[in-house]
Amino acid sequence: MRIAVFRKAHFNAAHRLYNADWTPEKNLEVFGPCSNPNYHGHNYELEVKVAGEVDPVTGFLIDLKILKQIIKEEVEDRFDHKNFNLDTPYFKEKNPTSENICVLIHDLLSKRLGSEFELTVRLWETPRNYVEYPA
Amino acid sequence: MRIAVFRKAHFNAAHRLYNADWTPEKNLEVFGPCSNPNYHGHNYELEVKVAGEVDPVTGFLIDLKILKQIIKEEVEDRFDHKNFNLDTPYFKEKNPTSENICVLIHDLLSKRLGSEFELTVRLWETPRNYVEYPA
Amino acid sequence: MRIAVFRKAHFNAAHRLYNADWTPEKNLEVFGPCSNPNYHGHNYELEVKVAGEVDPVTGFLIDLKILKQIIKEEVEDRFDHKNFNLDTPYFKEKNPTSENICVLIHDLLSKRLGSEFELTVRLWETPRNYVEYPA
Amino acid sequence: MRIAVFRKAHFNAAHRLYNADWTPEKNLEVFGPCSNPNYHGHNYELEVKVAGEVDPVTGFLIDLKILKQIIKEEVEDRFDHKNFNLDTPYFKEKNPTSENICVLIHDLLSKRLGSEFELTVRLWETPRNYVEYPA
Amino acid sequence: MRIAVFRKAHFNAAHRLYNADWTPEKNLEVFGPCSNPNYHGHNYELEVKVAGEVDPVTGFLIDLKILKQIIKEEVEDRFDHKNFNLDTPYFKEKNPTSENICVLIHDLLSKRLGSEFELTVRLWETPRNYVEYPA
Amino acid sequence: MRIAVFRKAHFNAAHRLYNADWTPEKNLEVFGPCSNPNYHGHNYELEVKVAGEVDPVTGFLIDLKILKQIIKEEVEDRFDHKNFNLDTPYFKEKNPTSENICVLIHDLLSKRLGSEFELTVRLWETPRNYVEYPA
Repeated sequence: MRIAVFRKAHFNAAHRLYNADWTPEKNLEVFGPCSNPNYHGHNYELEVKVAGEVDPVTGFLIDLKILKQIIKEEVEDRFDHKNFNLDTPYFKEKNPTSENICVLIHDLLSKRLGSEFELTVRLWETPRNYVEYPA
Repeated sequence: MRIAVFRKAHFNAAHRLYNADWTPEKNLEVFGPCSNPNYHGHNYELEVKVAGEVDPVTGFLIDLKILKQIIKEEVEDRFDHKNFNLDTPYFKEKNPTSENICVLIHDLLSKRLGSEFELTVRLWETPRNYVEYPA
Repeated sequence: MRIAVFRKAHFNAAHRLYNADWTPEKNLEVFGPCSNPNYHGHNYELEVKVAGEVDPVTGFLIDLKILKQIIKEEVEDRFDHKNFNLDTPYFKEKNPTSENICVLIHDLLSKRLGSEFELTVRLWETPRNYVEYPA
Repeated sequence: MRIAVFRKAHFNAAHRLYNADWTPEKNLEVFGPCSNPNYHGHNYELEVKVAGEVDPVTGFLIDLKILKQIIKEEVEDRFDHKNFNLDTPYFKEKNPTSENICVLIHDLLSKRLGSEFELTVRLWETPRNYVEYPA
Repeated sequence: MRIAVFRKAHFNAAHRLYNADWTPEKNLEVFGPCSNPNYHGHNYELEVKVAGEVDPVTGFLIDLKILKQIIKEEVEDRFDHKNFNLDTPYFKEKNPTSENICVLIHDLLSKRLGSEFELTVRLWETPRNYVEYPA
Repeated sequence: MRIAVFRKAHFNAAHRLYNADWTPEKNLEVFGPCSNPNYHGHNYELEVKVAGEVDPVTGFLIDLKILKQIIKEEVEDRFDHKNFNLDTPYFKEKNPTSENICVLIHDLLSKRLGSEFELTVRLWETPRNYVEYPA
């Protein structure tokens, strides 16, 4: 009886899109206003999907209180009200696109969940754009 | 030309999470406020996905009037404004978690749809938590 | 510079609509399936509007951390995962309609907010039905 | 690192469901009020999913400015404020059901996207009914 | 204890914006693609607000079953799956803008509700545009 | 026949809450993580309400193409993908709270709309918090 549970969370952060190997002109050409040196920001909405087997004793796939706490520690405490480029070491050398943030969140959560769970992460940068990993 | 159609429905119900083999203290420890003996409740939102082939004569995968009627008979008439623990025989012996309710709805609808259709059910317990079966 | 700020919250609860002076038949006739003796429930969504003047020093009408804490103490801690009819003394003698719950929440929050603020409460019983007090 | 990005768009259009080989009575019997000869209409909401590999130089799967422009040219400019039955040659001979419109949009967008991308299209006819191709 | 209750409904319809006293060129200039002679359409979403006093016996402002039935008879049965310009006599001589449709719905519902209720109607033509009468 | 029309728009921006007359400790105490010196950001959602009389010739209160263009020029072009503290002169000396941003947007739009229109602005900082001016 393989099933999936989904849990939503959110955080607010600033970022800019930027490749340090490029000139400012090249950054502006590729990333447009997203490369504004003074940053801009988003209300990121996160949806975590966990797939696995239901425990017949509890009727739970996973205790959502535990999943909620892991998301709080690994995602919200780390990124909420932060600047991805300046405040998070991982993005000192990597461009904080939605794609890269989504993969990082997947990796952070995977390390905390047991291997009996399969994890998929969706990240909304705006209500009109979002990414999913793995596809 | 394999395609899927989705139809939404909803119902309001009361429940409590509870394992009859456990003490009240153990139930409270595992299920927290969800084990309140006086029940609490939800606006359950349901999304039924039916996958199959399009009929070239109608351009329909399935007539949504028929799907809507099956959902009404099997889900809404059975669960709307009911108490899962007290009013539905299936949950006299089973914990009415979202996972278990979702699997039951999947089984009830599958019996009514022809075998040419593949069925997936999503059930929202709150706007922030939902389950999907099969995953 | 009179402005308003809005803050959302939510809680899940069970209830039944019921007038103790009436027969079961009369209750069923007036309240329909909402009078089910075993209760049903809702994900109540709450929107609190506070109107007043902006403080020029902070640029805030009211510190939302404080408003959020008052809503938690007066509404969420009191009603979340509860049964309005059985768990809250106020509704032992009063019918827990959305109208009556909304007026009660308004009164509970008003006692905690200073008189410089004007308060309006919206309460969604379902995504399709809600009430507002005062109108 | 296979990932997916999603982009939303929308357009408003009129249509009627109709099979030219049938009598008006048969059309009314099968398609109900959707066969009204004077048409009715919808706010169609579109969600385009593109799956593939992230470019390590940009951190992008695909530049969303480009995807947005392709959707504008192939979908919005073609269908917005139009009548599917009268204004779009493709539906002179085909019933403009959500299923058939979704498959057409998939084909139009596929021709514009490189073969390194896998495309899935979701089309909402109403907030309660939608289709996805391929399933 | 003056309070308001809100009830949502929806219908799908076709229309075009058009002033019969103008040339086609003038209609196109003022109304743009909304003047397409072949029509386009919308999923109209309706929100009806009824304000008044709570009945202390029921705890209701108004029985929502009755309000729902009045909305069905006066709005949904009249406009759903119809063409405003061709199927509804009122708009043979009047432009079916959201403003004019909203005022008409207000008048139709007012005639059915008792004078003890104050009525406000909101009508969404798209998720991004809506009107309210009276303001 | 006084009516209101509503139009939605959105922009993404970075900001921090900060009073230059205070110590960093005092800023942190009052504004919490919102005072992060490296900024954070939001997807601001805007709803502009314009009230007035319907023009009997067009059936419009205001041509939404014109309103959309004014919002683009005064709000989106000015604030989208910007940092309120660093990029907009108005907030060099004023704290960019939602309250202050909302009043500024109201003033910018009022100067462009004729005096026959009454304007109200709602600004969402997150899906859970928003402000309205005037109240």
